[in-house]
Amino acid sequence: MVKNTRHTFTTLTGLMAAFMLNITIASETVTDPMPSWVDGSSKQRIVEFVTAVTSKGSSSFVPVNERIATFDNDGTLWSEKPTYFQLLFIIDRIESMAADHPDWKTTQPFQAVLENDMAALKAAGTHGLIELAMATHAGMSTDEFEDIVKDWLKSAKHPTTGKAYTDMVYQPMLELMDYLRANDFKVFIVSGGGLEFMRPWTEAVYGIPPEQVVGSSIETRYEVVEGKPRIVREPEIHFIDDKDTKPLAISRFIGRRPILAGGNSDGDFQMLEWTTAGDGPRLALIVHHTDARREWAYDRESSEGRLDRGLDEADQRGWLLVDMARDWKVVYPFENQE
Amino acid sequence: MVKNTRHTFTTLTGLMAAFMLNITIASETVTDPMPSWVDGSSKQRIVEFVTAVTSKGSSSFVPVNERIATFDNDGTLWSEKPTYFQLLFIIDRIESMAADHPDWKTTQPFQAVLENDMAALKAAGTHGLIELAMATHAGMSTDEFEDIVKDWLKSAKHPTTGKAYTDMVYQPMLELMDYLRANDFKVFIVSGGGLEFMRPWTEAVYGIPPEQVVGSSIETRYEVVEGKPRIVREPEIHFIDDKDTKPLAISRFIGRRPILAGGNSDGDFQMLEWTTAGDGPRLALIVHHTDARREWAYDRESSEGRLDRGLDEADQRGWLLVDMARDWKVVYPFENQE
Repeated sequence: MVKNTRHTFTTLTGLMAAFMLNITIASETVTDPMPSWVDGSSKQRIVEFVTAVTSKGSSSFVPVNERIATFDNDGTLWSEKPTYFQLLFIIDRIESMAADHPDWKTTQPFQAVLENDMAALKAAGTHGLIELAMATHAGMSTDEFEDIVKDWLKSAKHPTTGKAYTDMVYQPMLELMDYLRANDFKVFIVSGGGLEFMRPWTEAVYGIPPEQVVGSSIETRYEVVEGKPRIVREPEIHFIDDKDTKPLAISRFIGRRPILAGGNSDGDFQMLEWTTAGDGPRLALIVHHTDARREWAYDRESSEGRLDRGLDEADQRGWLLVDMARDWKVVYPFENQE
Repeated sequence: MVKNTRHTFTTLTGLMAAFMLNITIASETVTDPMPSWVDGSSKQRIVEFVTAVTSKGSSSFVPVNERIATFDNDGTLWSEKPTYFQLLFIIDRIESMAADHPDWKTTQPFQAVLENDMAALKAAGTHGLIELAMATHAGMSTDEFEDIVKDWLKSAKHPTTGKAYTDMVYQPMLELMDYLRANDFKVFIVSGGGLEFMRPWTEAVYGIPPEQVVGSSIETRYEVVEGKPRIVREPEIHFIDDKDTKPLAISRFIGRRPILAGGNSDGDFQMLEWTTAGDGPRLALIVHHTDARREWAYDRESSEGRLDRGLDEADQRGWLLVDMARDWKVVYPFENQE
């Protein structure tokens, strides 16, 4: 919570919302729960929604236990360019594991990674990507994999910004999640990313505990060696959490329909559709990457976070398109420290 | 919380534990968090464990976010005789659906159910059971199935007690879960039972919300019909949560190792093993069905909740064997009202 001096609400609705949220207005100081959001229609829509579902006695009131919010991760809570950070993790892992795998020098798709040959990597397609993922994500225990991810995050730097990956999270989304939790929402991640790639850091970075992280997963096996049990990660995909399987994952892991969902790509379309098809007040938001200066600008043609159908249908479906360049005063937390 | 007058702690350790738990001792009145438990070694062990992990500054202190407890359901939180309640649900459903399926009269294993032919039903084996489960659990939306379960629970009665199934939950376990939550534990179910068979009622009955229920599941499919999305239940098993897959389910759904786990059968063995193999203080407990008078008495030879290896190894592994007849003053909540 940051205090903004001389913060003014531009509309009567906004002012009422502020009062209903118990925002302290005293001698020209207002505590703004989302100071990195521009005071415009997007922020207002979010505040009005949260105010509505938390107003006791109102017809739009939602009991605390039903205040479920789900967010995609890549491109919604942190950046996904030049490509998904988990893919950059895979590439780094292939490079650091290469000494133990001399055959990789002459075997695709590993050779492509080691020679930084993007054309060959693209030619390897989804099958090649899965092979790379399995080589780096399986064959160890869950505890060992957690350590690998944590170690990588400690030292790895983003190729263009030079920042740690966990510094490249969106300050306005951190504030939104804090604001929701302050209003007794339970906030989940529902991401195409790997469960065990996210869980080691989501609690520290987003305040989202492991048990509220839903994602893609690989097969695992339980084994007891010399009396000591461990869970071994197997090189086989168990579940891909994307597009129409996001609602299925929500149903299976959470067992309740969210009342708020946020995404940034067509991979989130069905999650937003499922969320807003429920009864009562619902809010779906899409982070639209419009800011080539502070982050990246992309939508319909991007190979990461492609947003096409969502862009066409957001308005008619009443989904909130958040315009990063217009709606966010700050993108990354480090901007506030520079 | 029920107040017991003249409650006395028999040991110094127990007394210290009571003080550390901020139990109010005033004019001979003590608030006992688990009044249905006999004041003996089992109760004392639980209280000592909870006291230890919640004592700030102690070497056994466990931070709030790591206080994960997992419980099996059938035979651990509610009864499972004459057979699993979900199987009784299946039988009731087959009977009420039979009018729409005239072929069932002459087709096994349906015929066995309709004719109450237990020998033929047993002969159909696991494959037959799965067929019955799929016929009754699939082919409708998740919302429709939830309504079916809720409707059944409203009217169905247990074949020997005549009680509603959700009345046949264990009062001491309800108190244990309340006690854990009062000490900032997050309590999960990890059951071989169906996810969507449990979720419609666990919050009202156990205080466990849907997102903290882990269980077996069938495949699902997302479809949009005339603009309205639904999740359809498919007649194919997705995951069976039993024995060595319980730790896998814990890893996948919760992503954190429990510090306390409770079960009643060898189907829970690996969950207890996984739980107690972690560092720091851990508690595993097994509900041993020893009470033929108030509930049922069974272990090694039972086809439901078979407890054999767990009975042999509990002591050497330091797992707490809860003796239902000896340790529980009350089994079912309705005993307090009769």
